[in-house]
Amino acid sequence: MNLAAAFFIEEDLSRTTNFRNMTTYETLIKHLKELHVLGSIGGIIGWDQETMMPPRGGELRAEQLAMLSSMCHERFTSNEIGDLLEALKAADESGELTEEQAVNVRETRRSYERDKKLPTDLVEELARTRSLAQQKWAEARKESDFKKFQPLLEKTVDLKKQVAELYGYEDDIYDALLDTYEPGMTVAQLDPMFAELRERTVKLVEAIVGTGTTSEVDALKRPHPLARQESFEREIAEAFGFDFDAGRLDLSAHPFCGGNAPNDVRMTTRRDENDPLSSLYSVMHETGHGLYGQGLEAKHSGTPMGSSISLGIHESQSRTWENLVGRSRQFWEFALPRFKAHFEGISEDLEFDEVCFAANEVKPSLIRVEADEVTYNLHIILRFEIERDLMNGRVEVKELPEIWNTRMQDYLGLTPPNDALGVMQDIHWSMGGIGYFPTYTLGNLYGAQFFEAVREALPDLDNQIVRGEFVPLREWLRKNIHCHGKRFSATDLIERVTGKPPSSEAFLNYMETKFGALYDL
Amino acid sequence: MNLAAAFFIEEDLSRTTNFRNMTTYETLIKHLKELHVLGSIGGIIGWDQETMMPPRGGELRAEQLAMLSSMCHERFTSNEIGDLLEALKAADESGELTEEQAVNVRETRRSYERDKKLPTDLVEELARTRSLAQQKWAEARKESDFKKFQPLLEKTVDLKKQVAELYGYEDDIYDALLDTYEPGMTVAQLDPMFAELRERTVKLVEAIVGTGTTSEVDALKRPHPLARQESFEREIAEAFGFDFDAGRLDLSAHPFCGGNAPNDVRMTTRRDENDPLSSLYSVMHETGHGLYGQGLEAKHSGTPMGSSISLGIHESQSRTWENLVGRSRQFWEFALPRFKAHFEGISEDLEFDEVCFAANEVKPSLIRVEADEVTYNLHIILRFEIERDLMNGRVEVKELPEIWNTRMQDYLGLTPPNDALGVMQDIHWSMGGIGYFPTYTLGNLYGAQFFEAVREALPDLDNQIVRGEFVPLREWLRKNIHCHGKRFSATDLIERVTGKPPSSEAFLNYMETKFGALYDL
Repeated sequence: MNLAAAFFIEEDLSRTTNFRNMTTYETLIKHLKELHVLGSIGGIIGWDQETMMPPRGGELRAEQLAMLSSMCHERFTSNEIGDLLEALKAADESGELTEEQAVNVRETRRSYERDKKLPTDLVEELARTRSLAQQKWAEARKESDFKKFQPLLEKTVDLKKQVAELYGYEDDIYDALLDTYEPGMTVAQLDPMFAELRERTVKLVEAIVGTGTTSEVDALKRPHPLARQESFEREIAEAFGFDFDAGRLDLSAHPFCGGNAPNDVRMTTRRDENDPLSSLYSVMHETGHGLYGQGLEAKHSGTPMGSSISLGIHESQSRTWENLVGRSRQFWEFALPRFKAHFEGISEDLEFDEVCFAANEVKPSLIRVEADEVTYNLHIILRFEIERDLMNGRVEVKELPEIWNTRMQDYLGLTPPNDALGVMQDIHWSMGGIGYFPTYTLGNLYGAQFFEAVREALPDLDNQIVRGEFVPLREWLRKNIHCHGKRFSATDLIERVTGKPPSSEAFLNYMETKFGALYDL
Repeated sequence: MNLAAAFFIEEDLSRTTNFRNMTTYETLIKHLKELHVLGSIGGIIGWDQETMMPPRGGELRAEQLAMLSSMCHERFTSNEIGDLLEALKAADESGELTEEQAVNVRETRRSYERDKKLPTDLVEELARTRSLAQQKWAEARKESDFKKFQPLLEKTVDLKKQVAELYGYEDDIYDALLDTYEPGMTVAQLDPMFAELRERTVKLVEAIVGTGTTSEVDALKRPHPLARQESFEREIAEAFGFDFDAGRLDLSAHPFCGGNAPNDVRMTTRRDENDPLSSLYSVMHETGHGLYGQGLEAKHSGTPMGSSISLGIHESQSRTWENLVGRSRQFWEFALPRFKAHFEGISEDLEFDEVCFAANEVKPSLIRVEADEVTYNLHIILRFEIERDLMNGRVEVKELPEIWNTRMQDYLGLTPPNDALGVMQDIHWSMGGIGYFPTYTLGNLYGAQFFEAVREALPDLDNQIVRGEFVPLREWLRKNIHCHGKRFSATDLIERVTGKPPSSEAFLNYMETKFGALYDL
């Protein structure tokens, strides 16, 4: 009748559309949250397997975990989810969803489409091969006999090539696998970042080794009772902001962080009586992961908005607390008096410079998980280069021991005495985890980039650390990173927070400055 | 053609029939075992909830447990299971199944038919009421205000009457509820057993109280470090035969035994520094449950042949190790030197007669869970009588506090100062667990009956206990009770093992002899 009336009708129609979409959207979220309740059980029984389960419980546990995983896969890739996503596509594209809703729809569709691309028989073949390869790898590593592992590694690489082709990629077949762990990351981005990181790190390591400086701190080599180590670690984790009402700290063979984020986050460590710093740094590392988990928003649990972005971003959080904070002189100004109080009568003669050096000593070594902050990335780059070349058919599995040993010599000046201490040291390839390793180094690079932004936002950060005031840093990380869930991709988040794309520059500046000073280069 | 040929054909036909049935049977077992894998996850996350879970993990945990439970219920009561059971009915009735197969089919049908009898809306109403009633009970108990709890207890009783009518019964409505916890047991069996037990126990308690004998053992009231208590408890549990490669011992607010029998059995206890016997007897009790769990046959896991018979039989095993073994003079001949060694410098002056008396002292008290071996059954009989009369409409919920207090005076000579220490002390009724209590006393009675058979089979038992040789007893229990799963009903098993029906005679003889001697009556 008149303009106002016509307008009213249109608005009303659009409301109806919106309401219809909301209902579809809410149905999707309901499904995702139910799936999350089911899937999150795996976080507890998986943790239990590594920390509490008696040896004979393993057989049933494997069945429980396999059943949960296949039920979740089946439910998530059901036509019902597919139909809901399809129905929401138009609403998403025409901008009818809120930003949060759009993130949840887009990221769910991403996972759904990936999961749907693999036919069931390939998924089963992958699971079977993984199980066999893991057993064979453990056996072959024990005997340091790569030939024993080779056929199953070849099969794994073949299967992963099939997977990559099914997932699809634009430039490099390796991108399709990388995308599983670090969505959106590509070889084209990694190659220049890692090349520069490698060159400057190799030079730095050579310079450090050239100084001949090493440390032997007697005060740290004495027996430090495990219970006292634990109570000190808990004090530090709490100071960093870990909420023990929403988490735990236990022992396991390999430290990890699991459980049910955000309200039940479970960290683990392993302790050595004669090396109190080892477990302490593990705990600081896992606390970084744990704070990310506890920083996710509970109201978004089970949806992409309540999930972490990528392994690289996760690792940036663990490295922030372990390295950027925990290995700083400021941290030890805060921590050393507390450390001495905890270990009264044991290491009270420990000196400030001694502990700062011991926490940062650079020493080329064969084993990745024991590597220091500087050499660590060389271990990763070596693995990345091999994986990338394997997937592109530029090298063959049988050549790996030789390639490994040659590069270890080039990058770290060491040659493994056998393949157990070389190409077979990690479990990842036996589990089909090709594309995983780069995320470790990405974590270091991202962490350093974020930390530059932190320093701008918190100009008093160094003094805060000395005073043990970790709340400002933790809140900055929570507000700028954790609470967003998957709202941004890793690259977008970094650009948003730091104004720059992912790069190795911040990390290299940090590393060269810190270790230049430490080794008086 | 000839007899042999005809015979051959018949045998062949019967084989075909058998094969067809076997396939149906195997399908049923496959379903049950899958259901068990899923359901058994609850055993771990339920245990975790009581022992490990941080406070804020509770909300998600409740959803996880509810989802598991409803998934299992839905799968178990599916038409697929119904059809399989229907298809196996004829085979069962015509004796084509082996004994084990027949047990699995019969017992599965029993559970299936029961579960199918309750309509979904009633099941949901029960769950809702339980949740509300538990909260209200906790609140009302804190304020010792029965009136606050009364409406929800009335609703619970009403719902349980509906449940009982749907389950069906022959003589007494209470039988339908009892059957949930103690299949096959009836009020007609309980009434005479419990009446005699009550009368003779009341007399015994009066006689004991009349002696005026009490004990105050200073050596047991000193601080006994918790870590040493734990290591002593583990030594005893291991001596009894608990396999820590297939189980654990942890702390919880209320001791229990859970996990995934038979290979992952998890016991808990609670410790008081100034009362080392309290946790020790909890552990012996849970070890009895744990040995039953570990004694079930792994090959039958998830089927009735691999499940315990009833709560009463389960309790008979815990009471055997806690009371019949653990409170005997023979046990302390074995254990006292070890106890003193564990508590070097603390209770080395503890005397043999002192500890035997402290472990067996009879003292009428208000709280069931703190009651001694003699008065305990009076607490149970009081509850049984009230439940039975409630279900039969002979008493009303509002009368309970008065009835409770009157009977406490009649049976134990005590009147609770308030309802928190009286009618509201237990969680069971708030959870709808009407029919549960009698199984505690049945456990005591069954245990004593089994133990008479044990004494005949192992004439050297007392000396074996003194020498710490528990293998013969454990193996007897395993061979005669544990390994059978649900092959026999509780009553059939007792008749088979002891030659007599369930009765209070063996327990009364044991009790009157033991406490007559202890109190010099």
